[in-house]
Amino acid sequence: MNFLEERIVKDGVVKEGNVLKVDSFLNHQMDIRLFDQMGAEFKRRFADKPINKILTIEASGIGIACVAAQHFNVPVVFAKKSQSINLDGDMYVAEVESFTHKCINHVIVAQKFLTSEDHVLIIDDFLANGCALQGLIQIVQSAGATVEGVGIAIEKGFQSGGRIIRNLGFQLESLAIVDGMNARTGEIQFRDQEKMDAENEESAGGEICRSSTLD
Amino acid sequence: MNFLEERIVKDGVVKEGNVLKVDSFLNHQMDIRLFDQMGAEFKRRFADKPINKILTIEASGIGIACVAAQHFNVPVVFAKKSQSINLDGDMYVAEVESFTHKCINHVIVAQKFLTSEDHVLIIDDFLANGCALQGLIQIVQSAGATVEGVGIAIEKGFQSGGRIIRNLGFQLESLAIVDGMNARTGEIQFRDQEKMDAENEESAGGEICRSSTLD
Repeated sequence: MNFLEERIVKDGVVKEGNVLKVDSFLNHQMDIRLFDQMGAEFKRRFADKPINKILTIEASGIGIACVAAQHFNVPVVFAKKSQSINLDGDMYVAEVESFTHKCINHVIVAQKFLTSEDHVLIIDDFLANGCALQGLIQIVQSAGATVEGVGIAIEKGFQSGGRIIRNLGFQLESLAIVDGMNARTGEIQFRDQEKMDAENEESAGGEICRSSTLD
Repeated sequence: MNFLEERIVKDGVVKEGNVLKVDSFLNHQMDIRLFDQMGAEFKRRFADKPINKILTIEASGIGIACVAAQHFNVPVVFAKKSQSINLDGDMYVAEVESFTHKCINHVIVAQKFLTSEDHVLIIDDFLANGCALQGLIQIVQSAGATVEGVGIAIEKGFQSGGRIIRNLGFQLESLAIVDGMNARTGEIQFRDQEKMDAENEESAGGEICRSSTLD
């Protein structure tokens, strides 16, 4: 287990309905020393990419993105969420479905903060169905900028977001991938990412097939 | 002028209606090196306080709070804003009027993240009428915790929030206090805080009198 998986086991709480509560260190109370370790790990995983900007989305992505940005020495832009569109000036807007809140949100970035010169690392705290993430990717592409990669703290590996994003060809790095949880025992099953990397070539075909049923 | 005032003059945009746009470095795109300078300055101004937690409010306070927290080596808690109350578990809730969005918001912090042992520094990006800030102070006090101080990036000195908070006896440190703006010329007038400190004792009586008309 890596440092984040260890922390999830120690302080995460599994609830019914595949809910993993990590609000004591990740998305309500925030452990900044942990965020710094996460930032260093993102830097290691994206060391060869010419990243000049980090893009995240309010609210709980902002803390991780800002601390990680210190390892890349780049500015952060956070996309705003709004049910209505009322920002002034020119902006990129993506429509995003929120399953949690059962509504359509707009994800918004001012055009002046993303240009075709930008090489963007997208960072967020959670990846589940990937709707918000796909909105962010769409915005980067609308700007003619390059998505150099996606860094996620916790991916729910049993939901489809990660598979879809990887099959689209993006370098998606999740520091912890939860493949299963048991609310009764509190047990959390993590994906063995080193093993996965080794088997990647063989399993790729199967992954693509399975993802095609999710559209 | 200090480093933040210089940056506001360089990149801030004054708009009609006393609006100061700082979205290129503070609250949409975020200059993390600037945030680091701000964090160091907050640490200098609150050096003698036994701060063990930083409290901020989503969304644009989070980045500043997280980078500043590295100078204090403490965790950050961000209060959530919601028009409805639907978080599970026990929480502290303050009602806050939003003049910008013309509605009542609830500011919410889970009770387990604030206790009577906590010595809290509240950090936010903007202070104008101070409604959100007063909600945060109320929440800290509901928890029986101590407000050790308030650190703000930009205070609109011509609105009443700063005066009210100072008159309540809190150590409020705003890195830049804007006393006036001219949308036609783009000119921004900052308060001379060093001079203000020197004159503090004489003017305190007057300050208190003026604040009493604001209730």
